[in-house]
Amino acid sequence: MFEAPYLLFLGDAPDGLAAKMAQGIHDWRPEAVAGQLRMESCKADLGIKDLTIKEAIDAGVKTLVIGVVNRGGLISEAWKPYLLEALEAGMDIASGLHNLLRDEADLAEAAAKYGRTLHDVRVPSVKYPVANGQKRTGKRCLAVGTDCSVGKMYTALAMDREMKKQGGKSTFRPTGQTGILIEGNGVPLDAVVADFMAGAIEWLTPDNDADHWDFIEGQGSIFHASYSGVTMALIHGGQPDALILCHEPTREFMRGLPGYKLPALEDLRDLALRIAQVVNPACKVAAVSVNTQHMEEADALAYLAEVEKKMGIPAVDPFRQGAARLVEALA
Amino acid sequence: MFEAPYLLFLGDAPDGLAAKMAQGIHDWRPEAVAGQLRMESCKADLGIKDLTIKEAIDAGVKTLVIGVVNRGGLISEAWKPYLLEALEAGMDIASGLHNLLRDEADLAEAAAKYGRTLHDVRVPSVKYPVANGQKRTGKRCLAVGTDCSVGKMYTALAMDREMKKQGGKSTFRPTGQTGILIEGNGVPLDAVVADFMAGAIEWLTPDNDADHWDFIEGQGSIFHASYSGVTMALIHGGQPDALILCHEPTREFMRGLPGYKLPALEDLRDLALRIAQVVNPACKVAAVSVNTQHMEEADALAYLAEVEKKMGIPAVDPFRQGAARLVEALA
Repeated sequence: MFEAPYLLFLGDAPDGLAAKMAQGIHDWRPEAVAGQLRMESCKADLGIKDLTIKEAIDAGVKTLVIGVVNRGGLISEAWKPYLLEALEAGMDIASGLHNLLRDEADLAEAAAKYGRTLHDVRVPSVKYPVANGQKRTGKRCLAVGTDCSVGKMYTALAMDREMKKQGGKSTFRPTGQTGILIEGNGVPLDAVVADFMAGAIEWLTPDNDADHWDFIEGQGSIFHASYSGVTMALIHGGQPDALILCHEPTREFMRGLPGYKLPALEDLRDLALRIAQVVNPACKVAAVSVNTQHMEEADALAYLAEVEKKMGIPAVDPFRQGAARLVEALA
Repeated sequence: MFEAPYLLFLGDAPDGLAAKMAQGIHDWRPEAVAGQLRMESCKADLGIKDLTIKEAIDAGVKTLVIGVVNRGGLISEAWKPYLLEALEAGMDIASGLHNLLRDEADLAEAAAKYGRTLHDVRVPSVKYPVANGQKRTGKRCLAVGTDCSVGKMYTALAMDREMKKQGGKSTFRPTGQTGILIEGNGVPLDAVVADFMAGAIEWLTPDNDADHWDFIEGQGSIFHASYSGVTMALIHGGQPDALILCHEPTREFMRGLPGYKLPALEDLRDLALRIAQVVNPACKVAAVSVNTQHMEEADALAYLAEVEKKMGIPAVDPFRQGAARLVEALA
């Protein structure tokens, strides 16, 4: 979708958290990153080379990626001189912000003038087909969660990296803006029109080598009233061979749904598997990926052991323990 | 959304089937229909009063509804003089065609000139919210199917009519273009952006009297790989108190999905109920609505008796037998 190498634009980020998107790209795709561009007031620092626009062009950079988030997802006027300079110098720009680059008249005009492309990764750039439900070659693994924001993207990225480290063939398949910025392509599923959701996921995970794994980024939860339709389309479009159950044990209520308790892991296992077997009767639940960031080490390990015993499949926190056992569970 | 009374435009329909939408409106909402407008070559006839544009205006008509389908869903050039005359005379126009009224320059221009509105019911005209999952007052009934096109809309319409006939309070809640043309409002769910699907259904079925029933038009099937996400959003946004299972017993494979057999009614019952209980633990499966149009009367009745015995709930073909027993099953 957009080309590496990237110049990560940190703008005037008031702290490291505001540059979380840049951090994610640096963490997961360091080989695609040539350096960072920080304004004078920037308080974030990825610890990589600072480049001016000119230096970035000399280093072969193709795309400036906006890696900073502003209040409300706006495109700051203070960033404009840098963005305009990048377009004039020959770079494309990619953004996952809520407000679109293309809606900024000055950026749109400069992009047209210099023949550059503005990549707004939150909106689909492809006319997706209606899903046909046909079996594709190759293997697919989908992370499904008891709730939104429980570590599905992290799990897919960690498994993809581990699979490659073990010498296997795999691809991370992003379905949200952060994942798309990391990978450079993907489907912004929550912005796809209803009839084409499952078809977009079929498009994203085409025929592949028999021993190749797609690690599909999950979205929402089949138990989340607001977004369950998106998750359903992911399962039926993705035709997973393996499901990884994702969970955050300290969370009591569903994100944004006061009064809705998180389901038990057994409930997620049973319902997700039933749904997946509609399109792939051979689908298995391979492992549990637990986000234990809000637990002490000893509590986390005890919890993981308990889940593993109860569920009869590996239970791992890939951040704490690495993703090796998750990948091995696919065998 | 758009105002009655309607003038049903049958155009140059080559046969009755091409005027199916007009027939649906006349069948289900005769009180909203002032008459029909047929071009000289028209072969369809609803058996109601023929009106010119002028006569329709004198009869108080507010909206000309395009009730005829052309090959490819196009807006025929041959219709244009009638449509333009209607706009000039003071009518709005409503259409469920694939091609949009608003994309026809001459119609758009005339509508602007005469201050009229073009209603393209296939595309959303509302900015829907994200679903909040909160319980609303009043009752909701949703028809879910083993497949697409098994009689879900017919079932909801027949139950709404029967409920009113029995003196109860109810509203038909359309989610597709034919239903919207019949009711004059609704949500074109398959054209809604993923993140807002369930919210659109919450919006469509707001708080109501405790003894009021919404009959929500179903879409797709949780077993249909192409559209299951839409169905999921309908169930979670609709928070149904009652599910009606819809089925067409002579169909072997899912519509548009060669190789996918239809699920058993028991499978639909179990999975749909499990999903519905995520948002409404009190939800029940009330009855089965069977489309037996491709069966002989004796076979149909034998099949219905068999299903009723097997499932332990009423099994009815509302077209053959009326919807009384379906409505009674809600009590």
